[in-house]
Amino acid sequence: MKQTIIQEARETMPLIHHLTNQVVMNFSANGLLAFGAAPVMAKAEKEAADMASNADAVLLNIGTLTADELSAMIHAGVAANEKSIPVVLDPVGVAATPFRTKAVKNILEQVKPTVIKGNAGELAHLVEIPWETKGVESVGDGNADEIATKVAETYQTAAVVTGKTDVICTGNKVLQNQTGHPILGQITGAGCLLGSILTACLTTNESIGEQALTALKFYGCAAEHAAGRTDVNGPGTFLPHFIDALSLDPSELERT
Amino acid sequence: MKQTIIQEARETMPLIHHLTNQVVMNFSANGLLAFGAAPVMAKAEKEAADMASNADAVLLNIGTLTADELSAMIHAGVAANEKSIPVVLDPVGVAATPFRTKAVKNILEQVKPTVIKGNAGELAHLVEIPWETKGVESVGDGNADEIATKVAETYQTAAVVTGKTDVICTGNKVLQNQTGHPILGQITGAGCLLGSILTACLTTNESIGEQALTALKFYGCAAEHAAGRTDVNGPGTFLPHFIDALSLDPSELERT
Amino acid sequence: MKQTIIQEARETMPLIHHLTNQVVMNFSANGLLAFGAAPVMAKAEKEAADMASNADAVLLNIGTLTADELSAMIHAGVAANEKSIPVVLDPVGVAATPFRTKAVKNILEQVKPTVIKGNAGELAHLVEIPWETKGVESVGDGNADEIATKVAETYQTAAVVTGKTDVICTGNKVLQNQTGHPILGQITGAGCLLGSILTACLTTNESIGEQALTALKFYGCAAEHAAGRTDVNGPGTFLPHFIDALSLDPSELERT
Repeated sequence: MKQTIIQEARETMPLIHHLTNQVVMNFSANGLLAFGAAPVMAKAEKEAADMASNADAVLLNIGTLTADELSAMIHAGVAANEKSIPVVLDPVGVAATPFRTKAVKNILEQVKPTVIKGNAGELAHLVEIPWETKGVESVGDGNADEIATKVAETYQTAAVVTGKTDVICTGNKVLQNQTGHPILGQITGAGCLLGSILTACLTTNESIGEQALTALKFYGCAAEHAAGRTDVNGPGTFLPHFIDALSLDPSELERT
Repeated sequence: MKQTIIQEARETMPLIHHLTNQVVMNFSANGLLAFGAAPVMAKAEKEAADMASNADAVLLNIGTLTADELSAMIHAGVAANEKSIPVVLDPVGVAATPFRTKAVKNILEQVKPTVIKGNAGELAHLVEIPWETKGVESVGDGNADEIATKVAETYQTAAVVTGKTDVICTGNKVLQNQTGHPILGQITGAGCLLGSILTACLTTNESIGEQALTALKFYGCAAEHAAGRTDVNGPGTFLPHFIDALSLDPSELERT
Repeated sequence: MKQTIIQEARETMPLIHHLTNQVVMNFSANGLLAFGAAPVMAKAEKEAADMASNADAVLLNIGTLTADELSAMIHAGVAANEKSIPVVLDPVGVAATPFRTKAVKNILEQVKPTVIKGNAGELAHLVEIPWETKGVESVGDGNADEIATKVAETYQTAAVVTGKTDVICTGNKVLQNQTGHPILGQITGAGCLLGSILTACLTTNESIGEQALTALKFYGCAAEHAAGRTDVNGPGTFLPHFIDALSLDPSELERT
């Protein structure tokens, strides 16, 4: 983890425009605020591009996508590309329905993401590698390196495949992260909030590989830190302490 | 409470497709995950049926219904009926406005719920028994047994009337539950999350009466358990401990 | 703080119809319930007026406004005006995009708010006083008294400008409040929930100045109370204790 990336993100406090799902809006906003960046969430078709132009980066998460929101996402993504600010695409549950598959295809035809981030099942679907999913969750196990590499190559972008071992592919290299805690699988939106913090880190002056690796390492260490507390006895009590942990200095979270 | 129902639900981890209100989406998802089942929440009209077909059961909750969502709910409910998976209808605030009254009528003309679940005021309204409501809350007191029986008969479904004493009518019999805690009335979505857990229990191999009774008893015991903690001093601190309690083994929650 | 205002609001338990943003719906509902009033949140265009007619007051918050919701807000506001119940307008991020600017203009042409409440940047924008904003956040510093006075005069309403020092202008006088805590800036929706509690206080039999001052003082004292706990170590652990504090008797919160 490059602590300077976290420090820089906190000093500049980037404004991250979220077009994200309704389940996690509050959690993502509170988590990103605790981390030290600034969320804004505006999904009207008529203002998505304007808000993206005000922002330092854009996050597109299709978790509860509707037809109107798809249009707003494309407007925001195109505006971000024009302004050359980072765009992260989180294709939640892309394999679950034809609507989602077409929506992501539509986005990728018009918007160039800086990073595509998802679980193995979601990213496997984008490059037609067979995978088992359940609802919007990935339940299979397989070669995340291959998936990340193929997504990066196909879409000419960086790819982040989350899982027990997270894999980052930036085109010319593959990086791995193993911080994290199983309790993240027992709360909703763990991957979505990671997307927010990743997006914030992408606004710093560093390589995308280092930015993504730092975001993943920091996030996983914060989860480990919170899960290890003696007053955390389940996913409910984990949540407030996890939000707290996201506000800590990376040095307080480093694993011994 | 039949502990085997809880165990079976946790082993199969059913995917519950929610078309639910925006106020409780995060709470319902986290509560259901803690319980041990898998939430998915997709409300686009174009994918509601597909997502329902992927799922093990469907929950329809009209708390913040819009015209577009009504159509999605009907698509999802019809798909669930075709696949013969359970459908729960929670007609939140049905008596509050003509829009809601018509929406529920519309749903019930096209979808056959496995269970209709609501407070006494909501279910009384469905069978034209007079009742006093305030906003979406039921404030009267009366014969829940009569209401449950009449709903079950009229709509040829099981009925669950929640209240200080919950009443279940499965057509041929009436069951009651008295677990629970008044603090549930001080948090938003207590009834909505109960609907999620009830829906998960309906996917097991048991009679609907036993499934509903177990869901209600378990949920109420979890609330009692959390409310009884010395570090719970109000509805805010109750919430994380309640989520934790929903992940416990039923034997840890049984009242002495 | 006039404790009788809090007491009266809790005794009558007013129903507050919210047309508010998706980020804060759960937090606002739980906070208002803890305070002792009753939230309802209905945003379908077809029922907004009916629900407002059932309610004791209406809150319009444009944080995640869409075109459909704008129409619902206007219907609800007009119905509230016709019924002579309080309406609070929270023009979140009004300066951020032309869509928001036009939407607020549109609302103010058709609805007469009892109180317009926002941060200095938002209210400055309504009366064309220059101000620096970042996304939906106000980052400048300036003459809140002037802004409040000009908003009150221009829109013939009461104005509440929130900040380190909150300023209330009721037309004939200016009041100030200094309760509060910086941690409120690290959670999402702190201003939105304040709007809910302010709206509840407006349903009591008192002058608007006293109502607004009491709401602000109480809210700020609750934040100070929660933030001062030894088991609060960040914004995540602050949240549940803050909700708890909102349910306390004002005498338990008064600063020494």
